[in-house]
Amino acid sequence: MERRNVGILGATGMVGQRFIQLLENHPWFNITWLAASDRSAGKTYAEACAWRLDTPLPERIAGMVLQPNTPAAAGPDLPRIVFSSVDAPIARELEPLFAAAGCAVISNSSAFRMGADVPLVVPEVNHGHLAMIEQQTTRSGTKASGGYIVTNPNCSAIGLVLPLAPLEARFGIEKLFVSTMQAVSGAGYPGVASLDILGNVIPYIKNEEEKLQEEVAKLLGSATISGFQPAPVTVSAHCNRVAVLEGHTECVSIKLRKPATQEQILGAWREFQPLQGKGLNGLHLPSAPLFPVEYAPEDTRPQPRLDLMRGNGMTTTVGRLRPCNLFDWKFTLFSHNTIRGAAGAAVLNAEILAVMGKFDFRDFPPVASGASSAELISA
Amino acid sequence: MERRNVGILGATGMVGQRFIQLLENHPWFNITWLAASDRSAGKTYAEACAWRLDTPLPERIAGMVLQPNTPAAAGPDLPRIVFSSVDAPIARELEPLFAAAGCAVISNSSAFRMGADVPLVVPEVNHGHLAMIEQQTTRSGTKASGGYIVTNPNCSAIGLVLPLAPLEARFGIEKLFVSTMQAVSGAGYPGVASLDILGNVIPYIKNEEEKLQEEVAKLLGSATISGFQPAPVTVSAHCNRVAVLEGHTECVSIKLRKPATQEQILGAWREFQPLQGKGLNGLHLPSAPLFPVEYAPEDTRPQPRLDLMRGNGMTTTVGRLRPCNLFDWKFTLFSHNTIRGAAGAAVLNAEILAVMGKFDFRDFPPVASGASSAELISA
Amino acid sequence: MERRNVGILGATGMVGQRFIQLLENHPWFNITWLAASDRSAGKTYAEACAWRLDTPLPERIAGMVLQPNTPAAAGPDLPRIVFSSVDAPIARELEPLFAAAGCAVISNSSAFRMGADVPLVVPEVNHGHLAMIEQQTTRSGTKASGGYIVTNPNCSAIGLVLPLAPLEARFGIEKLFVSTMQAVSGAGYPGVASLDILGNVIPYIKNEEEKLQEEVAKLLGSATISGFQPAPVTVSAHCNRVAVLEGHTECVSIKLRKPATQEQILGAWREFQPLQGKGLNGLHLPSAPLFPVEYAPEDTRPQPRLDLMRGNGMTTTVGRLRPCNLFDWKFTLFSHNTIRGAAGAAVLNAEILAVMGKFDFRDFPPVASGASSAELISA
Amino acid sequence: MERRNVGILGATGMVGQRFIQLLENHPWFNITWLAASDRSAGKTYAEACAWRLDTPLPERIAGMVLQPNTPAAAGPDLPRIVFSSVDAPIARELEPLFAAAGCAVISNSSAFRMGADVPLVVPEVNHGHLAMIEQQTTRSGTKASGGYIVTNPNCSAIGLVLPLAPLEARFGIEKLFVSTMQAVSGAGYPGVASLDILGNVIPYIKNEEEKLQEEVAKLLGSATISGFQPAPVTVSAHCNRVAVLEGHTECVSIKLRKPATQEQILGAWREFQPLQGKGLNGLHLPSAPLFPVEYAPEDTRPQPRLDLMRGNGMTTTVGRLRPCNLFDWKFTLFSHNTIRGAAGAAVLNAEILAVMGKFDFRDFPPVASGASSAELISA
Repeated sequence: MERRNVGILGATGMVGQRFIQLLENHPWFNITWLAASDRSAGKTYAEACAWRLDTPLPERIAGMVLQPNTPAAAGPDLPRIVFSSVDAPIARELEPLFAAAGCAVISNSSAFRMGADVPLVVPEVNHGHLAMIEQQTTRSGTKASGGYIVTNPNCSAIGLVLPLAPLEARFGIEKLFVSTMQAVSGAGYPGVASLDILGNVIPYIKNEEEKLQEEVAKLLGSATISGFQPAPVTVSAHCNRVAVLEGHTECVSIKLRKPATQEQILGAWREFQPLQGKGLNGLHLPSAPLFPVEYAPEDTRPQPRLDLMRGNGMTTTVGRLRPCNLFDWKFTLFSHNTIRGAAGAAVLNAEILAVMGKFDFRDFPPVASGASSAELISA
Repeated sequence: MERRNVGILGATGMVGQRFIQLLENHPWFNITWLAASDRSAGKTYAEACAWRLDTPLPERIAGMVLQPNTPAAAGPDLPRIVFSSVDAPIARELEPLFAAAGCAVISNSSAFRMGADVPLVVPEVNHGHLAMIEQQTTRSGTKASGGYIVTNPNCSAIGLVLPLAPLEARFGIEKLFVSTMQAVSGAGYPGVASLDILGNVIPYIKNEEEKLQEEVAKLLGSATISGFQPAPVTVSAHCNRVAVLEGHTECVSIKLRKPATQEQILGAWREFQPLQGKGLNGLHLPSAPLFPVEYAPEDTRPQPRLDLMRGNGMTTTVGRLRPCNLFDWKFTLFSHNTIRGAAGAAVLNAEILAVMGKFDFRDFPPVASGASSAELISA
Repeated sequence: MERRNVGILGATGMVGQRFIQLLENHPWFNITWLAASDRSAGKTYAEACAWRLDTPLPERIAGMVLQPNTPAAAGPDLPRIVFSSVDAPIARELEPLFAAAGCAVISNSSAFRMGADVPLVVPEVNHGHLAMIEQQTTRSGTKASGGYIVTNPNCSAIGLVLPLAPLEARFGIEKLFVSTMQAVSGAGYPGVASLDILGNVIPYIKNEEEKLQEEVAKLLGSATISGFQPAPVTVSAHCNRVAVLEGHTECVSIKLRKPATQEQILGAWREFQPLQGKGLNGLHLPSAPLFPVEYAPEDTRPQPRLDLMRGNGMTTTVGRLRPCNLFDWKFTLFSHNTIRGAAGAAVLNAEILAVMGKFDFRDFPPVASGASSAELISA
Repeated sequence: MERRNVGILGATGMVGQRFIQLLENHPWFNITWLAASDRSAGKTYAEACAWRLDTPLPERIAGMVLQPNTPAAAGPDLPRIVFSSVDAPIARELEPLFAAAGCAVISNSSAFRMGADVPLVVPEVNHGHLAMIEQQTTRSGTKASGGYIVTNPNCSAIGLVLPLAPLEARFGIEKLFVSTMQAVSGAGYPGVASLDILGNVIPYIKNEEEKLQEEVAKLLGSATISGFQPAPVTVSAHCNRVAVLEGHTECVSIKLRKPATQEQILGAWREFQPLQGKGLNGLHLPSAPLFPVEYAPEDTRPQPRLDLMRGNGMTTTVGRLRPCNLFDWKFTLFSHNTIRGAAGAAVLNAEILAVMGKFDFRDFPPVASGASSAELISA
């Protein structure tokens, strides 16, 4: 089976490094193009990048030369699939250029997440929203080229929406408090100064509470012909930075629309395997964990130190489900913020796009070219 | 002015060490008696104690010999004022013995906090509750000896109730969501293992959520002839341990009974100086900060590293007051957990008891012996 | 190929947990027996153990019942190979019992490391010392049963001796300064209190400097008919505990007996592959890294965060080789303290014992039974 | 007594903040002028500075307007005493301008530390070197204006040279091995990225080993008519960054020229009070600790957490004096890097310059104008 060529915009940043780590041995994708800012273009990846992951920088990547970050500069080398992890202002400028050039832009940036026809997707939660790509290409005039932008949510929203999705489906969620304790890797590199976080808590992350609040509603909402309808859930978030390297912990209190027992909630999580069904033509997405939500029964779980790599960093661990004095239930969740919450989220989006035929290149092997997203929405 | 003799039960623990730090140069109190478990009794304080504070162990204290922890063993050396910071099961056994022996027991233990006639007091919030001492001595038969038990709340409840008190007074508080990030010193020494907290969060502190929820209601409630009436406030708490040495951070969302603007809330905090009035006979409590609640206007405050020693560790710092999607307002607070939240709380309780004549020894100078708590309640 | 049955003494401790992690899927060994103190015996492993590793506790192990820690109690279930990671005073009592009962005791304890006929072994450095097993069994009267004790060094000695060994072989080492920055996991669980290490350094680890100094000399020395001859190297160690979870960093200055250029030293490390030769009958030890010493050329390396899992935690990373004003050269090394420095060290010792026929059970497949250790010494 | 006006170059940096903290209530000095880079000039201090100290920013300073950093721009407001903590390249350009304009520049920068006629001074160690000011003013042509540059050492050199000085005086020091564990505050703000130091060690600080090695020799050396003579001590340094906020820990092995017993070394430290004698005209320098070196007898000391503020951050704590296998003795020291190691060092230099009449303004009260440095050298 031939692997698809892919490129990375913002390849040297923290999320860019994770893209390389996750894609270098990916069975479906093959990194052929790395782009960086003008300052770095022309250097090899090894020269330009302060590699900060605890697995080695792959030698092949180390020697690749960073390209200027425009489709024009890429010319015929431009891959049709481009992962993007550049900062929002840059994404706002660059990503439409790549879509116009015919690329499927799989973006981790916040720039277009709330766009009226831009899918904001976590495959286990709302891959049906990908049907909106058609409206996007029509509106933006990229129908001919086939280019489009698909986004994944903010790192703290992804970890949260996974355990919420099966509760929304079975009981409905009316209200939600969430208080986060987020890792420093979420701020990139150099990011948070050590003088600010050693032995400390910073009770503020710029724009994070707003993103978390609005993205959850869009993710749990619906995608119809007239646009996205956010779910009628009211979210109030408190976002904090703590002295943790990787992984966001979130304390949640929820009010449901229908009563649910503890066992019913645990059951909803246990049985939540939305990508294992026949809807995806029986294909398994390589980055999808068998269980996207796992419950840890011990009082002291989840914990960053012990639960970070569950499901290869793609599983949200939930714990401490107990009654809430104010709402119905409260619990704590934990999720890897740069794998499930960023690069892994985008890779999983690419995988489901592949299976859904959204990379509609005739020669792509794992999917019957006729598979329509309509079939998949009911998965 | 002669200083009162005081003793310390549990003198070698983390809170015991803070008692020594705060009392050694106290203008009103003089440490004459230190007690410890049987294992340590007979040793000097320096021998028995792993001093963990960053100010030097006072030489006088270092040489004092630890006594067995019973009134009988103390004999005529038993001081009439005893600070206690022993674990709850031990406090449950020992503190009544000392009260029966005629001591005013100023306890930081959780053992009797919710007792039907035991005052749970933060002087700025509810010193009127100290009137309940009379019922306690009547009920327990210690009226003749004059002994009683007075408690201060859990560390996370104290920091929280200070900014709540003026809001309760002006607007009423109906509901309250609180999520904490608590320092390791709250667990004593050796307490939290480094393997459990370095680069980690533990989303659980045994019994902490329950204590926080019930103590806040008692503190904001009233003390009447028929007992304590908890305030009709519903609290839901999420308690977490983080890699911070000292100081608890708490994220709060509140629903008020009467609407309040942001400026009205800030005003309530700014003007909250309950111990500065004439009610205390014009006396200043040495450990009382001028402002028990201070607002830090920067987005990134409060922070453990920057706000720990505000008001000598006795001031709660509040920040980030902003509207809440679900309730009315949300904010973040920070409070020193072993000073304001433990030893300093007990010392402040002792100071107000002194001023109120509850150490009714004829020769105690700073208060007219006839001062009744009734007068003070309106302070 | 049938796997050998093995047991673990001290199975619930931090090193015991690493034994389970490393052995559960080991191609040559099969855990059939777990022992613990009287307090834990009779419980399942899951009940008795506070699992602290970031990989899941294997289900099979979780359900195994902990046995009392004597050979007698084990009866016919006693495995012939026993890994031990109990504290030194307990090891001093128990390990000879198991050796007397015919077990090969592969110990991580310090109890017998300096014993006159007990091999202290790092396979890449001095597996020839295993020839001393014969004298041990003769002296201790376990010749009939075949039981013996083999030890691995202290965690800080292992990381150090690996890059020293090829320098000793080529140039001779006369003097050595070493200053360590050691991880908290080395102290076990609960071990170091968080109040002692958060934002702190503790410049003392009990007995560590002595162990490091004497073990290095034994490891680099020779084993002859008249006993072990320590190498004539003088070591001065400063040992410190730092706020790192796993992995010891060591700063080293060395005086060589023969001059060596920087390139010669780098070459000595690069070419150091003592277990890849024909000496081991062409067999590869499953836990042996391809390169036991790797050099990281960047100024800022090695680092715990980036180099911990090099060689699956079995490789020592060296960096910053530069001239020393006082001696000849200085460099920094880093090594995983609970894998290469403890459990992995013992497992590697077991592997080389297997290959050398020291588990001389007829049915053990991977080695010709006639392989003598003499052949191997020259490897 | 009137206080001298002083200014600060680089007022908003970490060391600049410490200058403000230490000088705002100084009995001899009065901050009247604050300068910053062009980017900040014109803003108030509060606007331009991210205050990172745990004591409040003084209100008076908060409102002061930052000035451009040239003497010309200051005009008549230029104070005659200027503290400098700008980066070396900027110091190299700016400090001579201020000296030429007649200012005594008290610099913490490394730019001119090794200058042939620039005193590098720790008052307790070598204030006699200040006599070199005369040669400097002659050479540089600032004799008329009276301006000059005086420097203090690198933070890690200051902590080290204090306990060395009395040993050098009594026994002579021939060789010295030192391995440091340095706090992140030494790198300024934002400085070390949290991703680089949380749970980590970085075995490298740019140029630090070189500075430490050469500065110690200059500090322990002599100042004669023909220039500075470094002491004949050979130093080899290993410098590391650890996850500590404030305070450098250093492990030291020393070879003395004359034998010394443990008690003789402890005595040398105990009796080291070089600034308490008659040499300084009986004056006490406000920032000088009573004992610049204190010995902590516990095995586990010194520690950043417990010893940071000894002597208000100006005392070096020494511990663990014990024999060294290679040299004579080894010990561990700890010193506050931004107080004693930077701002406090410069302030103490200013104090001794004042007492020595080097701010030779007629109206300066605490010193007889005729006090010559020659008298003081023998102190």
